[in-house]
Amino acid sequence: MSETDVAEAGAGRRARGGGGSARRAERTAVSFETARYIERNIPNFEILNEEALQIIEHNAETVLEEIGVNFVENPGALARWREAGADVRGERVHIPRGLARQLCASAPGSFTQHARNPARNVEIGGKGLVLAPVYGPPFVRDAEGGRRYATMEDFRNFVKLGYMSKWLHHSGGTVCEPTDIPVNKRHFDMLLAHMTLSDKPYMGSVTEPSRAADSVEMSKILFGDDFVDQNTVMTSLININSPMTFDGIMMGALEVYAQANQAAIISPFIVGGAMAPVTVAGTLTQVLAECLAGVAYSQLVRKGAPVIMGAFVTSIDMNSGAPTFGTPEAAHITYGAGQLARRLGLPYRSGGAFCGSKLPDAQAAYETANSLNMALLAGVNFMLHACGWLEGGLVSSYEKFVMDADQLGCLHGLAKGVAVDANGQGMDAIREVGPGGHYLGCEHTQANFKSAFWRTDLLDYKPFETWEEEGARDTQALASARVKKMLGDYQAPALDEGKREALEAYVARRKSEMPDAFL
Amino acid sequence: MSETDVAEAGAGRRARGGGGSARRAERTAVSFETARYIERNIPNFEILNEEALQIIEHNAETVLEEIGVNFVENPGALARWREAGADVRGERVHIPRGLARQLCASAPGSFTQHARNPARNVEIGGKGLVLAPVYGPPFVRDAEGGRRYATMEDFRNFVKLGYMSKWLHHSGGTVCEPTDIPVNKRHFDMLLAHMTLSDKPYMGSVTEPSRAADSVEMSKILFGDDFVDQNTVMTSLININSPMTFDGIMMGALEVYAQANQAAIISPFIVGGAMAPVTVAGTLTQVLAECLAGVAYSQLVRKGAPVIMGAFVTSIDMNSGAPTFGTPEAAHITYGAGQLARRLGLPYRSGGAFCGSKLPDAQAAYETANSLNMALLAGVNFMLHACGWLEGGLVSSYEKFVMDADQLGCLHGLAKGVAVDANGQGMDAIREVGPGGHYLGCEHTQANFKSAFWRTDLLDYKPFETWEEEGARDTQALASARVKKMLGDYQAPALDEGKREALEAYVARRKSEMPDAFL
Repeated sequence: MSETDVAEAGAGRRARGGGGSARRAERTAVSFETARYIERNIPNFEILNEEALQIIEHNAETVLEEIGVNFVENPGALARWREAGADVRGERVHIPRGLARQLCASAPGSFTQHARNPARNVEIGGKGLVLAPVYGPPFVRDAEGGRRYATMEDFRNFVKLGYMSKWLHHSGGTVCEPTDIPVNKRHFDMLLAHMTLSDKPYMGSVTEPSRAADSVEMSKILFGDDFVDQNTVMTSLININSPMTFDGIMMGALEVYAQANQAAIISPFIVGGAMAPVTVAGTLTQVLAECLAGVAYSQLVRKGAPVIMGAFVTSIDMNSGAPTFGTPEAAHITYGAGQLARRLGLPYRSGGAFCGSKLPDAQAAYETANSLNMALLAGVNFMLHACGWLEGGLVSSYEKFVMDADQLGCLHGLAKGVAVDANGQGMDAIREVGPGGHYLGCEHTQANFKSAFWRTDLLDYKPFETWEEEGARDTQALASARVKKMLGDYQAPALDEGKREALEAYVARRKSEMPDAFL
Repeated sequence: MSETDVAEAGAGRRARGGGGSARRAERTAVSFETARYIERNIPNFEILNEEALQIIEHNAETVLEEIGVNFVENPGALARWREAGADVRGERVHIPRGLARQLCASAPGSFTQHARNPARNVEIGGKGLVLAPVYGPPFVRDAEGGRRYATMEDFRNFVKLGYMSKWLHHSGGTVCEPTDIPVNKRHFDMLLAHMTLSDKPYMGSVTEPSRAADSVEMSKILFGDDFVDQNTVMTSLININSPMTFDGIMMGALEVYAQANQAAIISPFIVGGAMAPVTVAGTLTQVLAECLAGVAYSQLVRKGAPVIMGAFVTSIDMNSGAPTFGTPEAAHITYGAGQLARRLGLPYRSGGAFCGSKLPDAQAAYETANSLNMALLAGVNFMLHACGWLEGGLVSSYEKFVMDADQLGCLHGLAKGVAVDANGQGMDAIREVGPGGHYLGCEHTQANFKSAFWRTDLLDYKPFETWEEEGARDTQALASARVKKMLGDYQAPALDEGKREALEAYVARRKSEMPDAFL
């Protein structure tokens, strides 16, 4: 990774809107470097040939027309579909061949998600890859405390770690479920954490349409009403209930976001063999049919609304029924879905630091590395769960968060491709050194060594004896130390005090308007 | 992985040559299943475009012509080069542009390496991928005994594990250095172990030309003189001393093997920035120049001799000088060298379960999975070090051997590609299940579940509570148990007693002809 690829975000972190408190915050703010989102300079890996792609695309249209999809508890959606020309029977929507694809055409192929620090804006689509942390686990784990229910303190810690992680471009959403906060009020505290403890882009709430509306309102306080009206400042995760069911709550959240021109990932969540056919081509057919229907629906709500075609697909252990990760079949699907998304002209969400392991051990790392590598080569544009995922997504792991985040640097390096300019060719070095010589001291090496190789911030490259003297630590132990150091070093990015107060006031008011609910 | 891809090797393991002892051995022999070598049904990942490839190829010819390569302490080689038209000055050989590539054209694009069990023969080249275990470490490590010098007992154990590893096609060579055996006699015991404890193909000795000759002689006892004259039964590892130096001992071993029509991997061993330029394109240029010279030389020794173009290339930690593994730059080189090998029409050796970690922990697994995935997609035909490699190749790890060997199943699964026949499409299943349904019980799932997904023999997919009750074991602990079980279950493949006695007599005679040497 070249040093110049890492944005020095100090200047961009300047608080807008002025005032004495902002200037004070600015003077004391510490800058943490963050790499720009990845722009691939390498090809995608295309596993399906043209014939296979056409078969799958044809079959997906057959699914939509002949079998149809369900939009449940959502009369408004049924009305929209009827008006668009679909054949609606009860809650079942049969979409004539070609209609969904035609509707998808108005979705942008790429869009900018703005961060409150403009240096952290991300472009989602095209050759880009934006990395966001784990989403959704009810548990956390660390080496000292073991596995336990996640709390708001854990949530804030993960947001801090994400903010300080060089290779992570996005603050994400539910980095863990803050189970000590009432269910109906969690989204306020989660959004407040992302907005105040980080200056990277973030995700909105989707667990109820009203919470999506709160997310839009809070974003307007942070960015200004006009800015949010005219720009995308949130990308949120809308799951499809596979097979082929679009529930009213998720679609309600999608409607809120699409109407506000905010981005949504429209994504099946599939354990192959359970929620989709047990074969790869069958699963891809269903994924494509579901995404066609979901993306088309977003365009019925608001033509041109930014959306991402998602595919969270994993395999299953047929003995236990457990989802399995980092497997060949998951890779096949991820590669294939990427091709289908590109042919649709849509940004593609898939991949992640997936693993089934209970611990941040070798199993976790094999499964994760398999998943991360395939996602890069599959042309993924937005990768949720890019770090911290453990135990099939039940656990946010402190140690694995920093372990995975370090590996994300490898993806940046891989995506750079190979330079073949005169410096890259290095012929002067080969001439200077010659047969039997040594390159370490030569001029070309001295000129290039700082940027020639990706450098880990975590892994051990020490001589055996040094490593042994220092306690023969494994990766988890090294990661544990790094987590403590990062949380100790954390300093919040500057934020205008007026905005902070307005956000806190909004949260306090809205919380006071409803009783606590834990279900 | 389909069940049918795994050869049931019982019949093939029948000892040839008959006799009572052979029949007795046959009756008691236990069959261990081994997968057929991989035949890729997926494309290769092509990181370099045509222009970049042409630049590198042009530069490699410039290196050969202008700078030249050294063939040291080898007057015979210099004579061969002079006769072929090279400009030889002292030990420096300047090869006119195009000559080396022209000489390489007589090397076969693919060849069969025979095993004593014909069901275990491997085809090296084309779309194939043959997996062989770690090669060369002076140390071994296991969870109980820690890190220690390797012994002949360790060597035999690793050969046994390799024999029993379903996804490993090749028994390899120096699976660890048996440091308790005199240096000048190790090759006898190592070969005897491969020949008697396994029936998979193996590698010959290269540490002296006389030891290569011993390897040929012992193979003649095992296979018969005529068979060895007419077939390739060994693939051995000939390293180039980068930059651009071909030493007399390695070339002497190459000469023995080429003359006997036995295969050699001709491979630079490069830590980038030390033995080659610090840039990827520069390293690829040198790798290509070295392989062109080495392969061309093999064809000067015997036109048509089977050879593999090798590239063992890794990056370096510029702080410590340690080689680093699983890095983006190593991947770039591995992808690029594969393209160069295919354009030369040669089988390609690269990749492996590389890692720098001291322990079979998460670092080891990240680095290894990065390396294994890139090697598959880079079009590698022969992968040495495919399992068991630890600590930069200083250590053969018992646990990592079985951990990596399990992951090799993923490569088999990935290489199968995506079936798009009627069963693969699964339209009947989608019709049967419909929106909101469940696929686990449907007919298509029942018919396919046994072969639909790759299945681990090692990793943990249990419910959290079960896993915790069983001791909350990490991957190393699971692997440790698997190593013990495999070594406990081991049974040798049948071998004709006459051949065994002849091999043992040859070894005893040759050993008695020389004093022990430990240097």
